[in-house]
Amino acid sequence: MIGSLLVANRGEIAVRVIRTCAELGIRSVVVHSSADRDSAAVRLADEAVQIGPPAAKDSYLDIPAVIEAARGRGVEAIHPGYGFLSENADFAEICEAEGIIFVGPPAKVMAQLGDKSSARSLMAGAGLPLLPGSRDPLGAADAAELAGQIGYPVIIKAVAGGGGRGMSVVRSAAEFPRAWTQTRASAQAVFGDGRLYVERYLDSARHVEIQVLADQHGSVVHLGARDCSLQRRHQKLVEESPAPLLPPELIAEMGAAAVRGAEAAGYVGAGTFEFLVDEDRRFFFMEVNCRLQVEHPVTEAVTGLDLVREQLRVASGEPLGFTQDDVRLTGAAIECRVNAEDPVREFAPAPGLLDECRLPAGPFTRVDTHAFPGYRVPALYDSLLAKVIVWAPDRDAAIARMRRALAEVEVRGAGVATTAEFLHEVLDHPRFRAAEHDTTFIETL
Amino acid sequence: MIGSLLVANRGEIAVRVIRTCAELGIRSVVVHSSADRDSAAVRLADEAVQIGPPAAKDSYLDIPAVIEAARGRGVEAIHPGYGFLSENADFAEICEAEGIIFVGPPAKVMAQLGDKSSARSLMAGAGLPLLPGSRDPLGAADAAELAGQIGYPVIIKAVAGGGGRGMSVVRSAAEFPRAWTQTRASAQAVFGDGRLYVERYLDSARHVEIQVLADQHGSVVHLGARDCSLQRRHQKLVEESPAPLLPPELIAEMGAAAVRGAEAAGYVGAGTFEFLVDEDRRFFFMEVNCRLQVEHPVTEAVTGLDLVREQLRVASGEPLGFTQDDVRLTGAAIECRVNAEDPVREFAPAPGLLDECRLPAGPFTRVDTHAFPGYRVPALYDSLLAKVIVWAPDRDAAIARMRRALAEVEVRGAGVATTAEFLHEVLDHPRFRAAEHDTTFIETL
Repeated sequence: MIGSLLVANRGEIAVRVIRTCAELGIRSVVVHSSADRDSAAVRLADEAVQIGPPAAKDSYLDIPAVIEAARGRGVEAIHPGYGFLSENADFAEICEAEGIIFVGPPAKVMAQLGDKSSARSLMAGAGLPLLPGSRDPLGAADAAELAGQIGYPVIIKAVAGGGGRGMSVVRSAAEFPRAWTQTRASAQAVFGDGRLYVERYLDSARHVEIQVLADQHGSVVHLGARDCSLQRRHQKLVEESPAPLLPPELIAEMGAAAVRGAEAAGYVGAGTFEFLVDEDRRFFFMEVNCRLQVEHPVTEAVTGLDLVREQLRVASGEPLGFTQDDVRLTGAAIECRVNAEDPVREFAPAPGLLDECRLPAGPFTRVDTHAFPGYRVPALYDSLLAKVIVWAPDRDAAIARMRRALAEVEVRGAGVATTAEFLHEVLDHPRFRAAEHDTTFIETL
Repeated sequence: MIGSLLVANRGEIAVRVIRTCAELGIRSVVVHSSADRDSAAVRLADEAVQIGPPAAKDSYLDIPAVIEAARGRGVEAIHPGYGFLSENADFAEICEAEGIIFVGPPAKVMAQLGDKSSARSLMAGAGLPLLPGSRDPLGAADAAELAGQIGYPVIIKAVAGGGGRGMSVVRSAAEFPRAWTQTRASAQAVFGDGRLYVERYLDSARHVEIQVLADQHGSVVHLGARDCSLQRRHQKLVEESPAPLLPPELIAEMGAAAVRGAEAAGYVGAGTFEFLVDEDRRFFFMEVNCRLQVEHPVTEAVTGLDLVREQLRVASGEPLGFTQDDVRLTGAAIECRVNAEDPVREFAPAPGLLDECRLPAGPFTRVDTHAFPGYRVPALYDSLLAKVIVWAPDRDAAIARMRRALAEVEVRGAGVATTAEFLHEVLDHPRFRAAEHDTTFIETL
């Protein structure tokens, strides 16, 4: 087993990874920007290395600085968390070249799956159903022509996209050229890659994803489905497992498809196959996320597994300790992302000094956070403040538990606001209670 | 279902009960002394009623004041938590007379089981194995004679005792008279009842208890065993479920015995049958605790049940929603009691203002507490500051997780100390790791 690990991330996910290191007896080293000097991750890690100023590009995204810290502290492996360098194939390749274990799939697998276009081709070859659209990056004219053929609405997506960014829904041929130009500019700015593709857009769909786990010896299992349909502008707000209302046979079929896809890609580690499920319960492959996801705790809650532990075992070369038949999903789990955003002001980031920070606890209630009283939420990074995860024997009880938990959130400070109350109300909505919401639910409230 | 509930308790257990009320849509009212005006329970309850000054006898133990608060707020039921009035049969009887549901067994059942002497008779009749000793309260001379017959060491226990108080181990006839006099004085002072009995004392035994749940319609199930052998001076420090090393057949036999005992007593609600298990794996009935216990969360963690919810369902007259065959214990759970006590100073209470109060969180980690930064731990009440409960697929992983969690505890303040570090070390002891500890383990360290 790996004996030492550098965590190349911040916030709650850095804390999350450090905790598993502590349980496994792995020496943990966390890198941090000067803004995160007094963070919870720095306090909980065995060692901390400041690698740059607050700006992420000069710290958490600075590959040479991260590699230097890893070499300086003599760690065997790097866990990239999510975001930042987690799906950067170049970074994974540099780690490999430096003899440092990158906790994630091999660089070339990540490159292939990170390119949405090549991922679509690969998955089509593995028999996964795709939405009608282009497999290759297109020019504006060809894209507009294809959009006309597949029929509006369509969605323009960045080849390098992910995490709900770099995409535009287009409802008519008239809107297309302008949307194309804007999306290309935005993709270039965010991902440094302006290539785009087009596919059919489903107006009423559920976002359902399959967690997979693959070892270095060819074994792949899936850990059931997560429904992440409750989104705002393609950003997930609430996630749950199992996916409600979907028949077990459909989940099994999607699980088998994800396993097939992972095998075709030569996937290693924890990964997520994202699908859309339409009103007729047909499913369509969207993309593979080559990282641990924000919403992984709901899968942990229903399976009893520690996914970071599984990642580290796989990265150490160990075989999976269980087969598909051993995987049992029990009860229902829900995660709510409590963001430092102001729902009243169009969810504008609302960072600041937390004079008060009381978070929920109690039976079957987990809070993953880096926040504490006296913590100053930086304006520079993402606005995730805490993930509240509950488990219960069934979905109704889990909703009741989550609403109880969200009502306990007391976060106060000048200029600080959170989404806790908003989520507390959303979870009481009849459509959410009946699991009849789709990805457009929040926008149509 | 009950629509409103008064919580006649304080600290973490008041918070615990209020949380389940919130999940079930039950209006919660908490009573409090003036010392607990700013407590977490007061903040989280729907309503709070100050019923007296800090001294427990004038507030939490003041039956008329509690009843008046319940009548004034028009609640349907009272949950007594543990300690205070929770095993006071008079209080239960007064509730019954006032038409208020007492969340616990009927007053007459509690009276019979609360009297250790009549409990022994009843359980002997139900076929539960007892340690050699007296069934009835004895005078000093008869007791000394009986002690000689059953053989030293013996334990002198208060008929009204419980919770590890009002008992003395005697190792020779010479010590007996003095021990008797002291124990009688202490029992009179603590329980207002100086009656004593004598039984054989096991030098090397495990404390193993069975959680039972009985409805008003004659159904009784047990929820497996908890091992609470890790004690200091008869006070439990660490509890776990399932009980390690004991063969499943023995647990099943003890479970069946507890169910038989509960049936014989006409038990209703959540209760605990405490047993000693000797080196030859013979088990002996000790007592029934007619309340929710401090260590109930480990049973919740392995069964997935919310025991307070089950209590409230039973108190509302609902039948148990499951049978013995439905009860499945999964994985392993451990609870550590983090007390505001100083291990360096003989575990003397170390209350005070908490300038800092950072408690663990993360995967499968639950903290039940009423403490928060800025909270002043009162010197007047018990020293329990937080219960840390972890679950894992197996005991070794649970120990690793608990040690990780305990290492995260950061509680600071002038004069404040906790047992977290002490427990962190104890859990690493080879005897605990091998589950070879007995109730004398801490004293022999």
